[in-house]
Amino acid sequence: MDRAVCERLDRDCPLAPFRERFALPEGLLYFDGNSLGALPKSTAADIGRVVREEWGRGLVESWLDADWFFLARQTGDAIAPLIGASAGEVVCADSTSVNLFKLAASLLRHSEGRRTVVTERGNFPTDVYILEGLIDLSDGKFDLVLAEPETIVGAIDGDTALVLLSHVNFRTGAMHDMAAITAHCTAHGVPAIWDLSHSAGAVPLALNRWGVEYAVGCTYKFLNGGPGAPAYVYMAQDVIAAYEPVVTGWFSHANQFGFEDRYRSTAGIEKCLVGTPPILSLRAVMHGIACFDGVDLDDVVQKSRTLSELLIDLADERLAHAGFVLASPREPARRGSQVSFRHPEAYAVSKALRAAGVVADFRSPDILRFGIAPLYMRYVDVWDAVDALARIMASGGWMAHSTDAPEAVT
Amino acid sequence: MDRAVCERLDRDCPLAPFRERFALPEGLLYFDGNSLGALPKSTAADIGRVVREEWGRGLVESWLDADWFFLARQTGDAIAPLIGASAGEVVCADSTSVNLFKLAASLLRHSEGRRTVVTERGNFPTDVYILEGLIDLSDGKFDLVLAEPETIVGAIDGDTALVLLSHVNFRTGAMHDMAAITAHCTAHGVPAIWDLSHSAGAVPLALNRWGVEYAVGCTYKFLNGGPGAPAYVYMAQDVIAAYEPVVTGWFSHANQFGFEDRYRSTAGIEKCLVGTPPILSLRAVMHGIACFDGVDLDDVVQKSRTLSELLIDLADERLAHAGFVLASPREPARRGSQVSFRHPEAYAVSKALRAAGVVADFRSPDILRFGIAPLYMRYVDVWDAVDALARIMASGGWMAHSTDAPEAVT
Repeated sequence: MDRAVCERLDRDCPLAPFRERFALPEGLLYFDGNSLGALPKSTAADIGRVVREEWGRGLVESWLDADWFFLARQTGDAIAPLIGASAGEVVCADSTSVNLFKLAASLLRHSEGRRTVVTERGNFPTDVYILEGLIDLSDGKFDLVLAEPETIVGAIDGDTALVLLSHVNFRTGAMHDMAAITAHCTAHGVPAIWDLSHSAGAVPLALNRWGVEYAVGCTYKFLNGGPGAPAYVYMAQDVIAAYEPVVTGWFSHANQFGFEDRYRSTAGIEKCLVGTPPILSLRAVMHGIACFDGVDLDDVVQKSRTLSELLIDLADERLAHAGFVLASPREPARRGSQVSFRHPEAYAVSKALRAAGVVADFRSPDILRFGIAPLYMRYVDVWDAVDALARIMASGGWMAHSTDAPEAVT
Repeated sequence: MDRAVCERLDRDCPLAPFRERFALPEGLLYFDGNSLGALPKSTAADIGRVVREEWGRGLVESWLDADWFFLARQTGDAIAPLIGASAGEVVCADSTSVNLFKLAASLLRHSEGRRTVVTERGNFPTDVYILEGLIDLSDGKFDLVLAEPETIVGAIDGDTALVLLSHVNFRTGAMHDMAAITAHCTAHGVPAIWDLSHSAGAVPLALNRWGVEYAVGCTYKFLNGGPGAPAYVYMAQDVIAAYEPVVTGWFSHANQFGFEDRYRSTAGIEKCLVGTPPILSLRAVMHGIACFDGVDLDDVVQKSRTLSELLIDLADERLAHAGFVLASPREPARRGSQVSFRHPEAYAVSKALRAAGVVADFRSPDILRFGIAPLYMRYVDVWDAVDALARIMASGGWMAHSTDAPEAVT
């Protein structure tokens, strides 16, 4: 393997043309699309029109004339095929954290004496915090179980009120077998919420086929929706009818503009809406999703794997002696679209990489994380990043960088 | 009073120059700034830069380099002087509904056996719905009291767990005496949340001076933050320390990037944050707030009153015989920045007005609502709108418009 081989792989790659949809800074090697996805050119081109015409000229009438009222649902319908869901099962609004709260609060209302709430130790923090807040609110009705990845299935039984798992672990990239865990939950009558934040747009997702009932996810990673873009909520068609909202805002009222004094829930997936969604940010999400138009999702999954394998192979060859230990699973089916390494100086190394034009993430305490965004990343990017890292380690260049004050976002 | 007088009032108005800060459609008479505020020119000019440079070029590093991490707090600090609060008492994120839920959920946790939750019958629906959801979640621990405006104070006593009131009623524009009601609540040890959605940027607000402890409000009305722009939460400095979040997302963790497994709340007003806020929409809010730079808020309040009085006087003279009944208080100190009329054909009339180039709101069942946005509205706008309405009523022009299917937003 050398750089010329990577160049040939890029030439032959069916996804290569789609890189043109993104406005990537010249010369930057961006391995952080799993934290903040790159800017679609169409977002940059359109956002001024949305502001000047839809808001500035259309004013309040754009709620109907520009479909603002339906944007949370329309965006959800656009997300649906990317996660193996159907139209009418997804809406896009609020943050991932708030969406988790909505679902978990409602599902825990019908726990019928079951006591445990199961999640993974090392799950993305906000997922655990949301559960802690709800359990605290229940005055001790539930116990939080922080299971290790390999003991999760064993922790789910007839006493489990709720399971909340991230499909892909934000630190290691380890990916759960969603179909198998879902089947186990179903067998025990346990509702499960899946957090797809690090999955959608990069790894195989077949929510309907796998029998998944509830999920949330963010749109600013592999879906390229922009910083802090609204997140989404999924409910399978056959659980929507029984779902009773706890966070009962006017956007889920059966007759929103009747301005009735008492709450009556609407019938569809809009049950998961609460207040007015941020329209400018939602418009950006629609452009992010549109970057997948005409893309074969099998190609996306395949490229995620081949890019990741290239990175692992090159690291085995050129970085193992410098103290990097692979923290992600080697088996592709157990790995999300990222490759993480442990290194005692991961923070300083991430800074040295940045100085060399490579953006990768440090994650406390010792993780160096390379996100793989298949829609716009190239094989040569992987080659050049490993080459830069090998040079930094050979020269001791990382020592010039402070080891204090971690700074980054998921 | 004739149109020439209005033209002279506009020439002499100290706020007249600030109209230039807004991109208003030529020829439109816009009386809906209390639903969706007009577009600031600086938003239109800057949003493309935010997208292309902060997101597109800065990518994930803009969380620090472009201050995204601090934007919810910075925006809150910018809102603070507009509501009589101090820096460090306000953050901007999530929707008004979600912010109400956060505060109410936490305050009801410490209700110490008190049973009633008091709000106003005819309050903005989402405020009531959020309370209903929380009361339902409490399994009957609380009773919802929907008081009439004149019986609210009498309904608040030692058995009251929480009060939630909108300062200005969205239908009638009736404005509560926030200072007096707050004093009454304080005397009975009752926490009160004020919804400032229809107040901020148009009527006098002195939250600190009035002893107000908790408030929320939206930014897309008189604050011109854009459609669905994030809302804000206010807590007085002396209640922040005791406040314990129930919706416990990672943005309020004491050590957010330590990624700790258990939740520990931060110390400041950031306790009211949950998940990642929508950055593009927050940037727009900052521009909306900046439209108040150099503006004397006393001038804003004064102009809101004189414009409203002009509208009421002209309506008395030219519309009373056509069946319009003033639904807003006549006394300026009891009225927010809107003038509402009842009319049995309010919906059809609003449509006929729109056809004549006047945007005013219908509110179910029979309200025609004229919002007064003092930063960009003119005396001649009021004259021309009443003139158009008088002509419509004289000609019977409203009859051509359907009376079905109300459509509008607050």
